Amino acid sequence: MPPYYYVEMVGIAVFAISGVLAVTRRGLDVVGAVMLGLVTAIGGGTVRDLVIGVEPFWIGDFNYVWAACAGALVAFWIGWLFRGTLKSVLYLDAFGAALFAITAANKVLVLTGSAPVAVMMGVLTGIGGGLIRDVLAGRPTLLMGRDIYATPIVIGCGTFVMLRAYSPAFPYADVFGIALIFAGRAIAIHQHLQMPSWLTAQAP
Amino acid sequence: MPPYYYVEMVGIAVFAISGVLAVTRRGLDVVGAVMLGLVTAIGGGTVRDLVIGVEPFWIGDFNYVWAACAGALVAFWIGWLFRGTLKSVLYLDAFGAALFAITAANKVLVLTGSAPVAVMMGVLTGIGGGLIRDVLAGRPTLLMGRDIYATPIVIGCGTFVMLRAYSPAFPYADVFGIALIFAGRAIAIHQHLQMPSWLTAQAP
Amino acid sequence: MPPYYYVEMVGIAVFAISGVLAVTRRGLDVVGAVMLGLVTAIGGGTVRDLVIGVEPFWIGDFNYVWAACAGALVAFWIGWLFRGTLKSVLYLDAFGAALFAITAANKVLVLTGSAPVAVMMGVLTGIGGGLIRDVLAGRPTLLMGRDIYATPIVIGCGTFVMLRAYSPAFPYADVFGIALIFAGRAIAIHQHLQMPSWLTAQAP
Repeated sequence: MPPYYYVEMVGIAVFAISGVLAVTRRGLDVVGAVMLGLVTAIGGGTVRDLVIGVEPFWIGDFNYVWAACAGALVAFWIGWLFRGTLKSVLYLDAFGAALFAITAANKVLVLTGSAPVAVMMGVLTGIGGGLIRDVLAGRPTLLMGRDIYATPIVIGCGTFVMLRAYSPAFPYADVFGIALIFAGRAIAIHQHLQMPSWLTAQAP
Repeated sequence: MPPYYYVEMVGIAVFAISGVLAVTRRGLDVVGAVMLGLVTAIGGGTVRDLVIGVEPFWIGDFNYVWAACAGALVAFWIGWLFRGTLKSVLYLDAFGAALFAITAANKVLVLTGSAPVAVMMGVLTGIGGGLIRDVLAGRPTLLMGRDIYATPIVIGCGTFVMLRAYSPAFPYADVFGIALIFAGRAIAIHQHLQMPSWLTAQAP
Repeated sequence: MPPYYYVEMVGIAVFAISGVLAVTRRGLDVVGAVMLGLVTAIGGGTVRDLVIGVEPFWIGDFNYVWAACAGALVAFWIGWLFRGTLKSVLYLDAFGAALFAITAANKVLVLTGSAPVAVMMGVLTGIGGGLIRDVLAGRPTLLMGRDIYATPIVIGCGTFVMLRAYSPAFPYADVFGIALIFAGRAIAIHQHLQMPSWLTAQAP
């Protein structure tokens, strides 16, 4: 099994951990936590696979689901351990989103040959699970806030497919895309950046 | 390219415009607006295509997505232009819903031969995108209110499939269905109609 | 038509009745009620079929949809009849969830041969429709509460697939699974059981 496989498993588990930490509140039970963690970790990729017409990635290899369940249980039982280090979890989550967005964009680019569809599916994979989790948990989704979460993913996936199209000889387009997304999101977390007001609706 | 194609593109853009205008509020940023506009415009048709087992309509022709993005950007940047004319946007949105509902019912009727499935998919295409948008935006969905939105679509799609079944020689079943939906919705907008109370749950 | 077919139809109608009773409130109209009942009754099974890549079960036999519509209309028009007997509806709903969860787990086990996927799809079928209904109706989903709803379904589906794997000669695995889910849920309803606090998140 290539090392990339283990990186993916850690990415899935981290997605589940950050997903559960985001919604934990008095009254959430362990079964609900596992389900919300699972949805966060594999929801975006599942919708992507349905849209492009392939079998959801976890049906052929259930280790993705086990990794997500493990992450959710860790977050539920020892979530208090992360309280002081919530920012580290945000950085790990940013890495997971970057990894899966670019992996998805690459998969879709190979499968359909369409660069815009690849960008759309990369973004869907990166933010879809979190959107479904927020809806199921009754929280405002990231689409309605000014946090910079989706924007680096759009830019990173766009850069990735353009590198593939215009510099096919450049071998590190995927690494570059992941780094770009992670850097953008990490700066936003560290500096508490929000969208500038000229890109934000004012009171009508 | 037949003129019908351009009508569809305008319909998609109008769907996106009305979708963004409905959810714009202080704090929504341009990336969120584009995503919500996109979901409103292509969400219903995408779910329909997944349910009937065909490739989502915008994967083979990305112009649908560009039209929706353009509509969303127009609504985000010059949405204040529409404020005074919000009612015109509602009428345009009614036309879009009518157009796509009947187009979908026709597509599904040809594909599956089942009139009830065609009606269901027509309704899903007409209201599905708005439902997903409302859920992602944290607004009450149209299902919980008394506004007359879904009812004309149900009646129009039902009439369309019955015309096709019992008067196959009548060539304008689609035009008639679209006109029926648009007229019903337009009257509801103009007269501020709501469902009569005998069709509405009273306090338990 | 085997008697099992009629049991399924009653199960679908009961799902729709319980779905509409759960969301009825002042202002809900009959069209919204039918749509929410429909989503409750066939939503979980539809998502399951999309995930495992088969045609949604109601496309080939529209009687499922008619049964759900009939149940929704009954609940909307004579819902007050059930007010005094709401608990009976909960028991019927528990039977429906048990029936469809085990039926789904069996279907998926035969189709994919994977026991964990079968459990996941059984749970999705049992609770998926209710989750989508709650989201569309703007109610907190069952995932965020301490009510014991999903847990018996997880245990029952898990027991069912283990019986199939380790005691393939035992002919009543499905009946046993259904009984287990129904019993667990019925006890929870009757005793007003909630998840114990050691399995529930405390105030952070």
